[in-house]
Amino acid sequence: MAAPPDLAHIHHAELLTTRPEESLRFFRDVLGMEVEAQSGQSAYLRGWGDYGRYSLKLTEAAQTGLAHVAIRAWNGEALERVAQAIEATGRGEGWIEGDHGHGPAYRFTDPDGHVCELFYEADRYEPPPELVPSLKNQPQRITGRGVSVKRLDHLNLLAADVRAARTFATDVLGYRLYERVELDDGSETGAWMSLSVMAHELIYTLDHHGANGRLHHLAFWVDTREECLRAADLFLDEGVYIEAAPSKHAIAQGFFLYAYEPAGNRIEVTTGGRLVYDPDEPTVVWTQADRAKGQAWGVKTIESFHTYGTPPVESGP
Amino acid sequence: MAAPPDLAHIHHAELLTTRPEESLRFFRDVLGMEVEAQSGQSAYLRGWGDYGRYSLKLTEAAQTGLAHVAIRAWNGEALERVAQAIEATGRGEGWIEGDHGHGPAYRFTDPDGHVCELFYEADRYEPPPELVPSLKNQPQRITGRGVSVKRLDHLNLLAADVRAARTFATDVLGYRLYERVELDDGSETGAWMSLSVMAHELIYTLDHHGANGRLHHLAFWVDTREECLRAADLFLDEGVYIEAAPSKHAIAQGFFLYAYEPAGNRIEVTTGGRLVYDPDEPTVVWTQADRAKGQAWGVKTIESFHTYGTPPVESGP
Amino acid sequence: MAAPPDLAHIHHAELLTTRPEESLRFFRDVLGMEVEAQSGQSAYLRGWGDYGRYSLKLTEAAQTGLAHVAIRAWNGEALERVAQAIEATGRGEGWIEGDHGHGPAYRFTDPDGHVCELFYEADRYEPPPELVPSLKNQPQRITGRGVSVKRLDHLNLLAADVRAARTFATDVLGYRLYERVELDDGSETGAWMSLSVMAHELIYTLDHHGANGRLHHLAFWVDTREECLRAADLFLDEGVYIEAAPSKHAIAQGFFLYAYEPAGNRIEVTTGGRLVYDPDEPTVVWTQADRAKGQAWGVKTIESFHTYGTPPVESGP
Amino acid sequence: MAAPPDLAHIHHAELLTTRPEESLRFFRDVLGMEVEAQSGQSAYLRGWGDYGRYSLKLTEAAQTGLAHVAIRAWNGEALERVAQAIEATGRGEGWIEGDHGHGPAYRFTDPDGHVCELFYEADRYEPPPELVPSLKNQPQRITGRGVSVKRLDHLNLLAADVRAARTFATDVLGYRLYERVELDDGSETGAWMSLSVMAHELIYTLDHHGANGRLHHLAFWVDTREECLRAADLFLDEGVYIEAAPSKHAIAQGFFLYAYEPAGNRIEVTTGGRLVYDPDEPTVVWTQADRAKGQAWGVKTIESFHTYGTPPVESGP
Repeated sequence: MAAPPDLAHIHHAELLTTRPEESLRFFRDVLGMEVEAQSGQSAYLRGWGDYGRYSLKLTEAAQTGLAHVAIRAWNGEALERVAQAIEATGRGEGWIEGDHGHGPAYRFTDPDGHVCELFYEADRYEPPPELVPSLKNQPQRITGRGVSVKRLDHLNLLAADVRAARTFATDVLGYRLYERVELDDGSETGAWMSLSVMAHELIYTLDHHGANGRLHHLAFWVDTREECLRAADLFLDEGVYIEAAPSKHAIAQGFFLYAYEPAGNRIEVTTGGRLVYDPDEPTVVWTQADRAKGQAWGVKTIESFHTYGTPPVESGP
Repeated sequence: MAAPPDLAHIHHAELLTTRPEESLRFFRDVLGMEVEAQSGQSAYLRGWGDYGRYSLKLTEAAQTGLAHVAIRAWNGEALERVAQAIEATGRGEGWIEGDHGHGPAYRFTDPDGHVCELFYEADRYEPPPELVPSLKNQPQRITGRGVSVKRLDHLNLLAADVRAARTFATDVLGYRLYERVELDDGSETGAWMSLSVMAHELIYTLDHHGANGRLHHLAFWVDTREECLRAADLFLDEGVYIEAAPSKHAIAQGFFLYAYEPAGNRIEVTTGGRLVYDPDEPTVVWTQADRAKGQAWGVKTIESFHTYGTPPVESGP
Repeated sequence: MAAPPDLAHIHHAELLTTRPEESLRFFRDVLGMEVEAQSGQSAYLRGWGDYGRYSLKLTEAAQTGLAHVAIRAWNGEALERVAQAIEATGRGEGWIEGDHGHGPAYRFTDPDGHVCELFYEADRYEPPPELVPSLKNQPQRITGRGVSVKRLDHLNLLAADVRAARTFATDVLGYRLYERVELDDGSETGAWMSLSVMAHELIYTLDHHGANGRLHHLAFWVDTREECLRAADLFLDEGVYIEAAPSKHAIAQGFFLYAYEPAGNRIEVTTGGRLVYDPDEPTVVWTQADRAKGQAWGVKTIESFHTYGTPPVESGP
Repeated sequence: MAAPPDLAHIHHAELLTTRPEESLRFFRDVLGMEVEAQSGQSAYLRGWGDYGRYSLKLTEAAQTGLAHVAIRAWNGEALERVAQAIEATGRGEGWIEGDHGHGPAYRFTDPDGHVCELFYEADRYEPPPELVPSLKNQPQRITGRGVSVKRLDHLNLLAADVRAARTFATDVLGYRLYERVELDDGSETGAWMSLSVMAHELIYTLDHHGANGRLHHLAFWVDTREECLRAADLFLDEGVYIEAAPSKHAIAQGFFLYAYEPAGNRIEVTTGGRLVYDPDEPTVVWTQADRAKGQAWGVKTIESFHTYGTPPVESGP
């Protein structure tokens, strides 16, 4: 029986960089995010439309990739329910005190080893005087710097066993499974899940190297396809590596632009995507033949999109 | 304590027309909807992105306005819970057998007298061969006829007592109240509510005539602002009366185009709008001074937007 | 010394089709052109923004390709000047009486053998009552059917000897050469020319088969990139073969979508492109290394784009 | 007999400001122009797509308005022809040495007293290393700062006698008259002229105060309507006064956004507009009844748009 999830949305992600200064410059000056705080080896960044204090924690590290993803629950009881469900799977690691901008969090790993945290209590962003917006239903003024991404939209995590990872996400975390890819041999190579009407908020795709805990990409939202096209122009002039030029995905129908930030983590600038209002929406299953058609308008996906992730791995499958 | 609603979304609306042929032509040829079925005095129409069989029931009648709005619940138990809550208010009218495309429905009136129905069981649309889409995550092919609206998006109902109407919607139906207008005298003249992250799905605004049960507008979704602009060009050449040219609302930040269909019901072509991910999103309260600034970019709202509704009334306040 | 050209613009093109009914349906129902007239084996079609009676003459034939391209001069004296210049090259074929919608024309072949006509006298389109537009500075109402292309924009002709063809166009016809491609071996593989500030109106690109008189593509204009993206959605659902999904050219910076009409002629839906206001604009020369970078955002051009033209040829280079 | 003009385009305009620092900040940080040079009381600014060194000379002065407009000829002979034609009217003031970025100029006043200069010799912009673009057919990299206007597009000059001013522009300067407004009393209140296929480059509209030499607005180009909408968002958050929110003009069909820069000069962010390819394009005449319909989609023009100009005047008509 379909029911709305206990979890509300992905609140933030912590990204690791081996080139902290260049990465910070990319997120601040090219993507146009604001640095809300800095502490130790980390900078906390936000899009102008993020209601929380930040949606990206950028941390200097010896290798790239995702440090953790943090998901917010609808309320304290919902948080408790999900934490107990995780506990029962043996994947739980217990409660931590919280971090900048949010309260106590329950830490666990997904079946592929990605570190995840759940919390409910969170601060709302209070802009400093120079960033107070004109419209009171907006968290921050639009700075108009570079791409000016609005907010963190979704994550795509690589998984050696996609089916195991997404089953945990749906059965334990309560994600709704909107679309998936199943090859002719019965293996599952991708799963698109959400907590809302938005087409995707959490994605698992196959790690072709069979590695664990790796990141495929972080996606930041802009409100229009024209902003994606404009972002490509800006990336071009900024010397940002564009892996996949703007086009439309067949799966979820999101509009995309993929690039690598200076340390090598893949970043998407995204908008659009279908909206799912049917409580009983059947999961769309894309076959090997479907995928052979390329993206929505026939664009063939570049090979690296299927093989590259962070941190990079030495040997292939 | 914030929690996700038991109701999922507005499934369809029944609109009354005194000029059935011209209205049908408008929705089919100018807005580009498909006639899914016709029966008696009614035509059932759908946007290419509606997952249900239809989102607009267009019925010939002696006067214009809204016959009823139908809301779908997440599941049978949720439906039962909400029906009981309504029953307890005395506004319930009991169960009806259902209509084309959906199962048993619980009928009631909101405090302003608008007829509403709730149901859970609903058919998914099965396209005829000529309307099978290329992408399997899409209910129907895009016909490319006129505006080609994608789906019904939201309703704005006039209410003589906005506060009473929206309190019923939030407290009994479970809607989330995202924004409202409160004048200096403490009266409430508008309330924007939703069941999802979308900025608004159900709106009440003040009926300046003090009448009951009237419609302000039905809004149909397009995916881009460019399609709103294009719709204005098409309306212009079709001789459709444009009441408010495309621009951006301050409230909810939706992009709009308002026009009257041939029988006089106000129709919006809309896109955009902010997304609300915070479970504890505080309601934004717009003051009289705020509203005096006009829409987002300063456009002053045309007088008729505040006074006109369907069915029309004889005398003013 | 730079000076404005004697010729004004490409007025129309005659395209040959082996599948007249399907081609007509494509241009009328998918691209959304109007059939202005039909005569013998030909249909005369127009975009809603073409000021002349038509911009596409579609003619049934035993093979596909371009029958002729027709260019309008600024005035009778300018026409005479250019005709005499052509006469002097020996490529002239003399005057013909004219065709539907235009007066006497001077016929010749370009160095690659494409049939061309020049004329000055031309009718302005007079819309029938049902196509009279709302805005008096517009030739025709927007029908809102399918892609709704606005007008013929430019032509790309294949040439076995690009340098010879473009030299004739610049030196004899007076075209301005804005961009060209020169490979490391000194050969020229493409030339982009115009009679106005628009980035390109006449293009020659290398015929890799060494054939003569073939067509690369006809391009139709839409006013926005969003309309190109929408066209791709419509092509997808219509089963039109998309050769190259929407993206941005490096050369001329036009936004493109390439598809094949039912008989196999390549059609572009285009918009954008840089504007050239400098009377002394230096020709931009793209090198082999430049071209290896792909289109503006790095999209690699599909192989067929470099090899396919109409009519098709048997053997390769 | 129609013929292409001897003049090529408006190269730059000199704008006067009483608030030089705030105005400079507006053009540089909000519109996103580059300061190419500074000298004395003037700053020379450019859009990223201007091929010349600058298109806006911003000069500190005791009052606002236009200091002069500078138009470039196709070549030296063309310049000489036009200068002689002006000389014959008695409006000529003779040759000056030139200014930053261009050679000798012929100075004159139009019949309303606006100072104008004509020249042919002009420098092409050479970007410093940090502004070298990725695409070699682009003068400068896109900085992505604020609105990021591309280039100066057109000027609208107020004139006490529109008919006299535009007759001079067409008969002496060679402008093509595409559209004009003629009221019921036979008076002319606006004239839209161009040197190219673009809908308008030089506009005269009636000075309701009967004053002379005043400026209605300077218009800067962006490539898409979405960028106009985005500019409105940025203006809102920057506290820039928006006089007219984005919408579409009936005349010329350009998309507009009007605002006042800090010293009070009216600035337009514009795109679109019809293209005029017919050498014999008849001038479209808009009547009083036509104008009463408002802009293309019915937007009523704000009163100040008809009365305000710079420098401001004390008393009305």
